[in-house]
Amino acid sequence: MKLLRVNMDRVETTWEPVPLEYERFGGRALIAKILLAEVPPECEPLGPYNKLILAPGLLGGTNLSSSARLSVGGKSPLTGGVKEANCGGDASFHLARLGIKAVVVEGQPAEGKLYVLHISRRGAELFPADDWRGLGTYATVAKAREKWGEDCIVLSIGPAGEMRLAAAGVACTGYEDQTCRMAARGGLGAVMGSKGLKAVVVDPAGGEAPPLADPELFRAAARRFATELAENPRTGRQGAMHLYGTSAIVEAVNEMGAFPTRNFREGRFEGVENLRGPHLREITLARGGKVGTRCMANCVIACCNVFVDPQGNPIVATLQYETIGMLGSNLGIGSLDEVARLNRICNDLGLDSIETGAALGVAAEAGLARFGDVESFAALLDEIARGTVLGRVLGQGAVVAGRVLGVSRVPAAKGQAMPAYDPRALKGNGVTYATSPMGADHTAGNAFGVRDKVNPLAVAGQREASLKLQLDVTMLDSTGLCLFARPPVYADPQLMVDLINGRFGWGWSVADLEEFKKTVIRTELEFNRRAGLTSADDRIPEYMRREPLPPHNTVFDVPDSELDTIFANL
Amino acid sequence: MKLLRVNMDRVETTWEPVPLEYERFGGRALIAKILLAEVPPECEPLGPYNKLILAPGLLGGTNLSSSARLSVGGKSPLTGGVKEANCGGDASFHLARLGIKAVVVEGQPAEGKLYVLHISRRGAELFPADDWRGLGTYATVAKAREKWGEDCIVLSIGPAGEMRLAAAGVACTGYEDQTCRMAARGGLGAVMGSKGLKAVVVDPAGGEAPPLADPELFRAAARRFATELAENPRTGRQGAMHLYGTSAIVEAVNEMGAFPTRNFREGRFEGVENLRGPHLREITLARGGKVGTRCMANCVIACCNVFVDPQGNPIVATLQYETIGMLGSNLGIGSLDEVARLNRICNDLGLDSIETGAALGVAAEAGLARFGDVESFAALLDEIARGTVLGRVLGQGAVVAGRVLGVSRVPAAKGQAMPAYDPRALKGNGVTYATSPMGADHTAGNAFGVRDKVNPLAVAGQREASLKLQLDVTMLDSTGLCLFARPPVYADPQLMVDLINGRFGWGWSVADLEEFKKTVIRTELEFNRRAGLTSADDRIPEYMRREPLPPHNTVFDVPDSELDTIFANL
Repeated sequence: MKLLRVNMDRVETTWEPVPLEYERFGGRALIAKILLAEVPPECEPLGPYNKLILAPGLLGGTNLSSSARLSVGGKSPLTGGVKEANCGGDASFHLARLGIKAVVVEGQPAEGKLYVLHISRRGAELFPADDWRGLGTYATVAKAREKWGEDCIVLSIGPAGEMRLAAAGVACTGYEDQTCRMAARGGLGAVMGSKGLKAVVVDPAGGEAPPLADPELFRAAARRFATELAENPRTGRQGAMHLYGTSAIVEAVNEMGAFPTRNFREGRFEGVENLRGPHLREITLARGGKVGTRCMANCVIACCNVFVDPQGNPIVATLQYETIGMLGSNLGIGSLDEVARLNRICNDLGLDSIETGAALGVAAEAGLARFGDVESFAALLDEIARGTVLGRVLGQGAVVAGRVLGVSRVPAAKGQAMPAYDPRALKGNGVTYATSPMGADHTAGNAFGVRDKVNPLAVAGQREASLKLQLDVTMLDSTGLCLFARPPVYADPQLMVDLINGRFGWGWSVADLEEFKKTVIRTELEFNRRAGLTSADDRIPEYMRREPLPPHNTVFDVPDSELDTIFANL
Repeated sequence: MKLLRVNMDRVETTWEPVPLEYERFGGRALIAKILLAEVPPECEPLGPYNKLILAPGLLGGTNLSSSARLSVGGKSPLTGGVKEANCGGDASFHLARLGIKAVVVEGQPAEGKLYVLHISRRGAELFPADDWRGLGTYATVAKAREKWGEDCIVLSIGPAGEMRLAAAGVACTGYEDQTCRMAARGGLGAVMGSKGLKAVVVDPAGGEAPPLADPELFRAAARRFATELAENPRTGRQGAMHLYGTSAIVEAVNEMGAFPTRNFREGRFEGVENLRGPHLREITLARGGKVGTRCMANCVIACCNVFVDPQGNPIVATLQYETIGMLGSNLGIGSLDEVARLNRICNDLGLDSIETGAALGVAAEAGLARFGDVESFAALLDEIARGTVLGRVLGQGAVVAGRVLGVSRVPAAKGQAMPAYDPRALKGNGVTYATSPMGADHTAGNAFGVRDKVNPLAVAGQREASLKLQLDVTMLDSTGLCLFARPPVYADPQLMVDLINGRFGWGWSVADLEEFKKTVIRTELEFNRRAGLTSADDRIPEYMRREPLPPHNTVFDVPDSELDTIFANL
C-alpha cells in the first residue's frame, strides 16, 4: 500500500511507500503514529503545521462485514490534542482498494484558496475549487458527481469547515441511500478547511481487493464474524440494532436517567415518547422511508434508516441516537421531524450534531433560544450558515459559546462537548469523557453497554470499566470495524487475531493484540502530553460535581484520584 | 495586621489574624501564597472556588515614596493560571493604614446578586447593590461618594466585569485628579464580577501609620530612596518620567521598531509624531490639562497627567504608553485625542486597554473596523457596552476574538494579549511574555529598560536578561513599589533590605531578598503547574516565528530550548 501526501503549500500530490514504522498501523492507530511522528504537538491546530489524515482501518477494503469505517484525524482545534473521528460510508473501502493506506494533507495554501482533491487509480490531482465556496455538503456531492460521475465517493466540508468552525466535521457519502455520514467530532472539518480542501473525491474504478496473507484463515474468520453478528440477538435480523438502529437506546438511556434534557438540567425527558426507536421505525415505514439499510456495502447488521417527512421525502440518512439526544431532548424537543430538520441543516453545513446540539443548549440557557421551540434553534443554525458573529460563536462549539455568552453550565471535557449520556447518571462515561485522549466522546469507551455489570450510579468499578472499554475500542477504530460489530471480537479476541493474521500474516497472538491496544492509547497520551495536556484537563465541569441531576439526583463523584490513575499501568 | 475574609456565599465578612505562613508576604507574593494554599488550581476561574484578593505590598501604608501600588489577584480567566495585576491610586495606602494585610473574597452569591463592600475602621459590611448594576466605573465612584463621602476610595468594576468579560480589570480611584487607575490585566474584573462584587469602598478615616521595627533605619532608607529618585536623571524633576510620564518611551519603542502597528503588522508607525510624549505634554499644558501629577500621595516621581480635550475638559487621567500603543498605533490611530476617547470608554466600562486594544486590532483584521478610523473602533466598544454577542466576543479578549472571527494573527501568550512591544523587535520581552507565570505582561519583566545592554534583535542574552528582570520585579510587586521607582533598589538591593528590616525587623540580608524573589516565582510556577500549564503554554504565537516584522524584518527566533530552561536553576 501507499501513502498519498497532499501538500497544500505547493499544491501537489506525491505517492510514497508506507514507511516501515507505519506499516502495522491503520485507522486510529495510524493517525496517532503519524501525528506523533510528524506533527509538532504544540502547533496551532488550524495552522500549516497540523496535518489532516484520512486512513482506512487495517481491515479496510476487505469483504469483512462492517469493516469500512474511515478514520479522519489531526490535532483537534477543540481539545488541542490528538483526534480521530470515524465515519461509515464508502470512502474507506474504496481508498483501501486503491491501495491507499492513508491520505496525509499537509501545509496550507495561499489565503482564501480552495481545492478539491481527486483520487483515482490513475493518480491524485488537486483542482482549484474557488467556485465551490459556500456549498453545503449535499450540493458539494452533487457538484462532484456532476463532474466525476455518479459512482464517485465524496468526502467534503460544508460552510462550517470553510469558516474553520471547531464544531465542523467531515461528511462522507455512503452506500445506497446514505447521503451524509459524518466524521463529526473534534473539529476536523475546521482542520480540513484550514487546508483549503473543500472535498476529496474518490473514483472507485479499478480498485482491487487487498491481498490476503492466509486467505483460508481470513475467510473462515470473516465468515464466522458475519455469522455471529447475524445470530446475535442485538445485531441480527430481529435485533434492536437492525430494527431501530442507534435510536434503539433512547428509551433505555432515558429510563436510566442519563438522557440529556434542556442543556443537561435533567436526565429524563417528559417528551421522550416520540423520540424512541420503535416510533422512529413506525413512522418511517408508514411514510415510505427506509429502515435496516446499510452505510457500507459489506455489513450484515444494517442499522441505518432513511428518515422521510410525512410526504415521504428524504430528510436525513441516518437519523441517529446522539442526534436525537443532542438536537432533541437536550433542546427540549420531542419530535423526530423537528430533530431531523435540525439534523439536516447540520449535515448540510457540515456540523457535528453533538457539538452543535450542546452549543445550542448553552445558547438557550443564555436566553438566545427557547427550549422546545424548534424555530428558535433553526434561527440560530441560520446564524451559523450566514457566518454572523453569533453564528461563529456557536459554531466554535459549546465551550466558546459558554464563555462568550456567560454560561457556566457547559457540558464538555477537554474543550469538547459531551455526547448524549449525562455522566452523573452514567458515571463510567464521565470517566471516559474526562480521561480519554479524545476528550468527551462516547465512542472512546461507552459504559452504556456494561450498565448491567457496573452500576451506572456507583463510583465503584467505573475506572476499571472505562479503561477496558477505552482499550478495546482502539482495535475497532484501528481495523475499521464498526462499534456495533464488536460482539464477536470482544467475546473472542482470537477472532480478531485471526482476521489480522489472515490479512497480513503477522503471526499475532492475543497478547500482541492486547499490546497493540495499549500502544494506541500510549501514543495518543504521549502526543497530548507534548501538546500540553495534563491531568488538569482530565476533568468533568465543576457544576456536574455540585448540581444533582434529576431524577436520581446524583452528582459526578468519581474522585480525581481515580481519574488520574486510570492509565497508571499502561 | 489582619486578613479580611469576605464570604459571598453567606454574604458575610470576618476578620482573621494573619496566618503565620502569610506573615512575611505582601502584594504579589502574598497573592501567590494564598492562591496556592487556598484555591484549587484546577478550579474554574469564574466559579465559586476561585478567590479575589486585594493586597497592599509589604511596605504599603508607610510614607515611603511610590510604595502604594495595590496588588489584585486570583486565578485568571485569560491564562488559567495565577494572576496579579497592580495599580496605583489610593487604595493600598489606606487599606494598609486600616491594618489590612489582604482582603480575600470567596464563594459566589446567589445568581445575579450584586454587592458593595464597605470597609472602615469600624468594620466591613456588604451592602446590596442591585441598583448599581450597569454603572460605569466613573458613575460608580460618584455613587459611592454620594453615599459615603468625597474622601472614600473606590475600587470598582464596570459593566465589563459584571458581564464577566475576561478583558475586564479593576478600577481604583487615585490621588487628587487621578480618577481611574486600573489593575487591568488578566481578567480580574471578571473574577470580581463573578463574586457579585460591584465595588469596594474604603473609608480612610482613622487609619494609622504601620509600626516600624527600626524607625531610624527605615526613615534613613526611605529618605535615601526618595533622594535618589529625585536626583535620578530619569525619575527626577527634569527626567523624562516626570515630564512625559510613560509616554516618554513612545518615540524610542517606535524607533527600535517594536511599536505595534495595525495588529502587530509593523513595528514602526508612520503616524507616531502626534503620539509622542513631548506632544502629549505640549497639548496638555496648552489646553489647561496637567502633567507631573501623582497617583498616590507619597510619590516624588509624579509621572501622571490629566489629559483634557481642546476645551480643557478632563478626558482621562492618566493617558499612558501602553494605551497609546494598543489603542493608538495598533489600531492605526495617530491622534492622542482619539486614543484618549477610546481610553475613556475602556476605563468607564472597566476594560483593560491592552487586552481590548489587541482584540480591536484582531477585529479590524477580520474586517469589522478600519485601521485609523476611530469611529469604527468606538462603535465596537459600544457593542461591548451594550453586551451584544460581538461585544462579548471582543470583551473576552484577543484570543477568543481571534478564534471566533477566524483570525490567526493574534498577539497573545498564555491566552493574554501582548502589551505594546512587539517581541520580534524586543526579543527579551518575547521571552517574558512566553515564560512569565503571568502570561504576556510587560510588567513581569520588561527588557525595554535593558535595550542598551542586550541587543533587542539578537537571541543571545535574552533568556538571562528576562530571568533577572522577572525576578527583580517580584520585589517591587510584593512591596508595593512602583516599577518607576526601581532605580535605587535595583542599584543597591541593600536599600530594599534596609526598608524591609526597618519596617519589620526581620534581619534580612541581600541573600534573603534574593531567595524571596525566587520564592515568589516558584510559588507562581507551582500554582500554574497544578493548574495544568506546561511548557507548551510558554510559547509565542506561530505567526511571529514566520512573519518578519518591518522595518527590521526579524522574526521571534529565541529557541524553545531557551524558553524551557529559563527557570531551570530556580
